[in-house]
Formats: sequence, structure tokens, C-alpha cells
Amino acid sequence: MLGLKLPTDPRWVDIAQKNIQEILIDHAYCEQKAASHAISLMVNFPEYPQLVETMVKLAQEELSHFEMVLQKLKERNLNFGAERKDPYVNDLYQFIRKGGRRESVLIDRLLFAAMIEARSCERFKLLSEKIDDEDLKKFYRELMISEAKHYTTFITLAKQLCGHIENIDHRWQEWIEYEASIIKNYGTKEFIHG
Amino acid sequence: MLGLKLPTDPRWVDIAQKNIQEILIDHAYCEQKAASHAISLMVNFPEYPQLVETMVKLAQEELSHFEMVLQKLKERNLNFGAERKDPYVNDLYQFIRKGGRRESVLIDRLLFAAMIEARSCERFKLLSEKIDDEDLKKFYRELMISEAKHYTTFITLAKQLCGHIENIDHRWQEWIEYEASIIKNYGTKEFIHG
Repeated sequence: MLGLKLPTDPRWVDIAQKNIQEILIDHAYCEQKAASHAISLMVNFPEYPQLVETMVKLAQEELSHFEMVLQKLKERNLNFGAERKDPYVNDLYQFIRKGGRRESVLIDRLLFAAMIEARSCERFKLLSEKIDDEDLKKFYRELMISEAKHYTTFITLAKQLCGHIENIDHRWQEWIEYEASIIKNYGTKEFIHG
Repeated sequence: MLGLKLPTDPRWVDIAQKNIQEILIDHAYCEQKAASHAISLMVNFPEYPQLVETMVKLAQEELSHFEMVLQKLKERNLNFGAERKDPYVNDLYQFIRKGGRRESVLIDRLLFAAMIEARSCERFKLLSEKIDDEDLKKFYRELMISEAKHYTTFITLAKQLCGHIENIDHRWQEWIEYEASIIKNYGTKEFIHG
């Protein structure tokens, strides 16, 4: 699944489907944070027109997914709620190289985003296959496809913008290894990356 | 013009039209910051469904305006560039009540946004009337209409969500007075709020 080294603990789907409201609220915030990260990338790297154009489109798409998740809550008469921390994403964030070349930060921020898309895609796939709810099965199958596309978008951008500076496949393998070392600690909570 | 107390120094349009690239870049960031502020409002006040639904739509609209401004730069073979500080917005931000009731912060954040929309609307109107460029005249007339609608959206939301807690018209008058006290210091730079 997009090169991830460790699959999610299969018990996670059971935990998730017993807490649909929590999962949907957390999912909505994942979409919002993806939109905010895309905006932040374009503000921080305005010298790359291709990045700016792609990120503004992506931010809009993530916000439309946010709306779709809100709609799912509404259909089920479930309230939206406050954001919870996402320790998995915070753990991943630590792997972004600080200082050094500007391009190293850009590469890592793109791979950080690709990594979250890849893991979200794997989790959405699990939900689409195993959740005991036909409507949500369908919903997560659609969104899984989007996440896979976004993963590709980020990897492709990293190669196009910075492939002449660093071997992106090699750095991606380092991200894969790092992610495998932290995902072991997750899979037991009712969050998308819980 | 939407109740603003002081009009913009008329010399501002001359300064602006001599620096189209600067104005367009700054304008793009105004749209981006409006989108980011809308996202921040919905994340900070998730208990108001009407606010969340309106802000996610608004954020998407602001991002589509960002794209329109990028397109104008492109058509003129002008590059996008780095963000500049917006001291006018920072000055306005100081007037948001800190601490106290949660609703007071919400009211002020909505009126802060309404104020920026109102002043931007006035500036866009000036550009649409006085700039020596037919294409940009038309562009700013369209965007002026959007800003006026957004101004109404924020005032209406403040009344609907918090009108039972505070007299919104009265608080808005305080914002108008405060804004008049700071706008005197502006009107001389090649920024939307410069």
C-alpha cells in the first residue's frame, strides 16, 4: 500500500467503528489540517509557481472534503466538536530537517505530506473494506482514491522541484523507515491516525 | 461606504497603479489571509454549525480569488513573490478583546474580519474607478462586490450568533471609531491596506 512498511493493527477498525462520531470529527480536522498545510506550503515557498498553483487547488479540494465529512455527521444527527491532538502527525513532523538548505525543508515538507496521505489512504482503505456500514464503506472508498492521488502529487512535486538536488526515492525510503518506527505505537485509538 | 468614517487618501491610487506587481502580490496574500482566518474561526468555534458551514465556503471562495489574482500576475508576465507584513491588519487585531467571555472574542473576530472586508471593499472601489487599466478596473469592480457581500456575512453572523449577548451595532461603531483612528496613518504605500 503505497510502500508503507507496516500495516495498521487490524483491531483498529473495530475501535473506529464503535466511535463513528469521534472518527468523523477527527477526519474532518485531518482534511482541515491538510488544507492549512497546503496553504502554508504556498506561503512559505512562493518562488515555485507550480507548487503555489497545485497547493491552492489542493487546499480547496481538502476543504470540500471537510464539507463532505460535516455532511456525514449531519446525516447521522451527530454534532461536530473540538479538535483533538494528532500525536502521530506531531511525531512525523519531527523528521523534517530543520535549518540547512531551503530545498531540504521543502523536500521534507512535501514528503511529510505524502506520508500522511499514504497512511490516511491505508486507513481509509481498511474502513472501506471492513466497516460495518454500507454508506461509510462507499464514502471511504472514494476518499481513499483522493488520498492516493494526493500522495502521488506530493512525491511528483518533490521530484520535479528538487529532484536535481537530492535523490527523492532515497529520502522517501528514509521517511518510510521512520514512519514504520512510530506507527508501531498507534492503532489502538478512535482517530484516523490513532 | 459600509459606514467607514474616513475615506482613503486619494493619492493612494496613484501610488498603487505605479506598483501593479506589488499591489497584486499583496492582494493575493490578503485573499490567502482571509481564507486562513476563516479556517481559524471554524477551528476555534466548532460549536456553532452555522459559523463552520459559512467559514468553510468563504475559505474556498477566498482561495479562488487568490487564484484569480495569480492569474492576473501571469497574464502580465509578473512573478508572484514573498508576503509582506500588513501593519494595518496588525493594528486592527489589537482591538480584539482578549480573555473575558468566549462570545466577546467571537464577536470581535467577526467584526475584525468585517472591518477588513469593508476597508478592502473601499480600496477596491477606488481601484475600480480610478486605476488607469480597463482590465483591472473590471477585475476590482467584481471583487469589490464580493468584499461587500463578505462584510455583510460577518456582520449578520455576529448578530445571529451573539446578538442576544451584546448590541452588535454598538460594538461595530466602536470598531468604526478605532479603525478611523488608525487608517489616518495609512494611504501612502503600494499595498492594499498600505
